[in-house]
Amino acid sequence: MAPPDFDRLTQDLLRRIDELCLLTEVPGTITRTFLSETARQMHAALSGWAADLGLSAQVDEAGNWRARLPAAGPDAPTFYIGSHLDTVPDGGKYDGLLGVALGLALAGAVRASGQALPYHLEVLGFSEEEGVRFAVPFIGSLSFIGEVEPLLARTDAQGVTVSEAMQHFGLDPEQLAQAAPQTPALGYLEFHIEQGPVLEAAGQPLGIVSALVGQHRLGLTLTGRANHAGTTPMHLRHDAMSAAAEFILAAEQLALATPGLVATVGRLTAQPGAVNVIAGQVELTLDLRHADDRLRAERLESLLEQLQQLAQRRGVQAQVQVLAEIEAVPLDERLRHTLQAAARTLGLDAPELVSGAGHDAMILSRRMPSSMVFLRTPGGVSHHPAEAVAPADVTAALQLGWHALHTLTQEHP
Amino acid sequence: MAPPDFDRLTQDLLRRIDELCLLTEVPGTITRTFLSETARQMHAALSGWAADLGLSAQVDEAGNWRARLPAAGPDAPTFYIGSHLDTVPDGGKYDGLLGVALGLALAGAVRASGQALPYHLEVLGFSEEEGVRFAVPFIGSLSFIGEVEPLLARTDAQGVTVSEAMQHFGLDPEQLAQAAPQTPALGYLEFHIEQGPVLEAAGQPLGIVSALVGQHRLGLTLTGRANHAGTTPMHLRHDAMSAAAEFILAAEQLALATPGLVATVGRLTAQPGAVNVIAGQVELTLDLRHADDRLRAERLESLLEQLQQLAQRRGVQAQVQVLAEIEAVPLDERLRHTLQAAARTLGLDAPELVSGAGHDAMILSRRMPSSMVFLRTPGGVSHHPAEAVAPADVTAALQLGWHALHTLTQEHP
Repeated sequence: MAPPDFDRLTQDLLRRIDELCLLTEVPGTITRTFLSETARQMHAALSGWAADLGLSAQVDEAGNWRARLPAAGPDAPTFYIGSHLDTVPDGGKYDGLLGVALGLALAGAVRASGQALPYHLEVLGFSEEEGVRFAVPFIGSLSFIGEVEPLLARTDAQGVTVSEAMQHFGLDPEQLAQAAPQTPALGYLEFHIEQGPVLEAAGQPLGIVSALVGQHRLGLTLTGRANHAGTTPMHLRHDAMSAAAEFILAAEQLALATPGLVATVGRLTAQPGAVNVIAGQVELTLDLRHADDRLRAERLESLLEQLQQLAQRRGVQAQVQVLAEIEAVPLDERLRHTLQAAARTLGLDAPELVSGAGHDAMILSRRMPSSMVFLRTPGGVSHHPAEAVAPADVTAALQLGWHALHTLTQEHP
Repeated sequence: MAPPDFDRLTQDLLRRIDELCLLTEVPGTITRTFLSETARQMHAALSGWAADLGLSAQVDEAGNWRARLPAAGPDAPTFYIGSHLDTVPDGGKYDGLLGVALGLALAGAVRASGQALPYHLEVLGFSEEEGVRFAVPFIGSLSFIGEVEPLLARTDAQGVTVSEAMQHFGLDPEQLAQAAPQTPALGYLEFHIEQGPVLEAAGQPLGIVSALVGQHRLGLTLTGRANHAGTTPMHLRHDAMSAAAEFILAAEQLALATPGLVATVGRLTAQPGAVNVIAGQVELTLDLRHADDRLRAERLESLLEQLQQLAQRRGVQAQVQVLAEIEAVPLDERLRHTLQAAARTLGLDAPELVSGAGHDAMILSRRMPSSMVFLRTPGGVSHHPAEAVAPADVTAALQLGWHALHTLTQEHP
């Protein structure tokens, strides 16, 4: 396949994204939620872009937007490239949409090259990933893999169910099965901004995701004894705040000493919460993530042992409640190697990294080999209007995608 | 002076307190606030008890209740024993009232002994110490020493001024000067429950107060960077919560290493306060107390240096606001020796200790030699219905007071 002009492709893609982001529910912000009128306008605009590239597009029964570059033979397998089209309220330009746009630009470039692929290439724009309207994420990708059924009865703030929302949009929830892949799936590739500082700190435009982290969310209650801040000497205190402080530093030290582990205490409330009263009770949360579930469980156990020891030493009671536990998702090793080989061809380092957040690739990996490429995120800023991406990094992503599609062609002739 | 039957005196005193505490603004609780109808009933009941003991009593223009055992000569100086009569809402039996009751029981015992003292003995029941109604404490004792003037225009929650409240009670704020001592003041002795755990931990019924602590109250704001708990590696964080935790432990360690220093972080709030977001900003308070003002200032300076260092190391901004600074008050050394000598006579250890809270003695020390004796407080519990005192400790207080009054007689013949 003769390579396209990547610089021109990048300029076109970024201009398209600038235009597409003018479609918003809240003027002056970037806000596109699941099955909104803005989502419908986005589908139409993307289909217009697809038509410009000579590709046909449609919206499936889950509200996912899909464009297809067919292979010569109808029984060929399908390779998917995509991400999600919805945003958080007042979000950024690139979270989700960039991955769909890269897929579309690549499919357009393949078609323009005039050479047919030995597999269908399908671009996926998932309708729902952020979990804004129904407080549950991944409705689009779960529909695609046929696992959305348990969520259809969930309601939004107005009491409308997922099923009803689909009907209001003109979809038929009875026909959801048709959203599933109709040919064998070769695999899935998702480009997404990193939404973190790792690639920027490493000075690398792209990273290849090895796994999406598993996580524990805990609620901790430390109960000491509220007492007078003036009349209670230090050695006779049972200070829940000091106990919490010791735990926070223990969690931080454990994470610093364990490559890949992140530990966060983001919420803390103290009772009675007065300047001159020793805290009798402190409630705090712990968010603990690692790509290796067994290691995470071991480290958590060690941390909770430390908690019990420090609590006992301080005469404080420690109660622990598991709020959530999510298993890690390793991504497909073969696709990862394909992406790494493509990076080497381009002279890119493209370090492996772990995704600390969830993505549609996590859902798709249940049904097909799945892969992810992260793009460097300036300042690590995301879910914010200041979200950005460097044009040169977009070019690198297009080049990487092009080479990967070429390698797949050789692997599946 | 022939000693009284201290056991009988103790029983009578505790029975009187049980009865007096039935006078309350809120049935089922112990609640007596400044210039309430309950305060008026308390005055009448105390005057009845004083009459039973052969003492005359009156209420001064500040609403302070006062009983007097006159010396033989009218020009003799006056020695005062007292404490306050008001309580916090839903308070305990002994905070304040015990000191007045001990003074009254001692004055009654002296009168019953038939021997005249070379000084007038006056029992003071201050009208206001807790600061409940006007959010400022010590109105009773400040009136007594002629320093209440600046507070007379302060208003309560209903907009009533101190001055108006006095008038509604039937007092004349124009005549407040008459509340001041009319003869030279020999000194002041206040018995009060410790409201802390020191004497209980030391196994001692009584303690002699050397000083009331000075204190700093600070508000601290730590500003880091809010970020995703999953996608931000540990070494790229600017976590305001971890910085706060390090400060809390530094304050604790400094206080543990400095005899007499107490440091408390009782209030902490974190923004944005979500499980899965690194805290971008934490606001917390510091309450720091010591009986030596210079030492406290030095230790605070050292702690704030540590704060700046840890903040710089973590890439966090630390702002410090002084909310309040109160100087320490040393109590009269000569009276302290008199009390220590009395304790030795009784075979009591009566350790010296520092008061971590404020008391009327702090105010009276501005105008006369002042002293305080703490009674052991079971569990350190105060400002609570469970507040208690052991009868044997009350007996010890009566014996100590009796001996001290005797010593004063020898010192001021």
